[in-house]
Amino acid sequence: MLKLSDVDSCLKALAEPTRRAIVEQLSLGPASVSDLAKPFDMTLAAIVQHLQVLEEAGLVRSQKIGRVRTCRIEPGGLDALATWIAERRTVTERRLDRLGDLLDEPEQPIAGPQKDKETKP
Amino acid sequence: MLKLSDVDSCLKALAEPTRRAIVEQLSLGPASVSDLAKPFDMTLAAIVQHLQVLEEAGLVRSQKIGRVRTCRIEPGGLDALATWIAERRTVTERRLDRLGDLLDEPEQPIAGPQKDKETKP
Repeated sequence: MLKLSDVDSCLKALAEPTRRAIVEQLSLGPASVSDLAKPFDMTLAAIVQHLQVLEEAGLVRSQKIGRVRTCRIEPGGLDALATWIAERRTVTERRLDRLGDLLDEPEQPIAGPQKDKETKP
Repeated sequence: MLKLSDVDSCLKALAEPTRRAIVEQLSLGPASVSDLAKPFDMTLAAIVQHLQVLEEAGLVRSQKIGRVRTCRIEPGGLDALATWIAERRTVTERRLDRLGDLLDEPEQPIAGPQKDKETKP
């Protein structure tokens, strides 16, 4: 389920402030392309291009009914990125916890010769 | 604590695959610049530039002792981005939950005149 390309395309899509603002807007509910364009000083064509990048990254989906294209957030779209971040934090925290444990417990003879060095002020 | 610029600089820094690989490597433990450069077919100067972007985004810190610059992960560096993602997911999920509740409970007279319309096949 979790592909590296998901994280990559997701980050590249979200690194652009207008696309991030579109994601924020669509989190609140579906919107038409012209509604999405309103707050931005941009042409419809520019917004459509941003939406295309977001769709390809799996963050947004859209459906055209008649002449109106309605865009929605893709509910699981941020999962891959969230997992990548969680993994990095877990690895870092576990390592720092282990380091903290070692520093907190100078009484325990983990490695004899180092003990004196560590407990001296 | 959470600034928009953090999310922006963090996403821009992580949208580059080499920089993401550096963050993954440093999550496992501190490393010198030359150690970080080894897996990549890149000059030291190119790696130093990537590290600079990561430092400016608050994802990595480094310290030069003698001739060796050692890089470490900044423990809270991904917090702003993780919070942004969590917020988007919460807003989306709450909205979809509300929508799901409405669809699940057609018996409840939420809005009288619409009831008939919704329960008919």
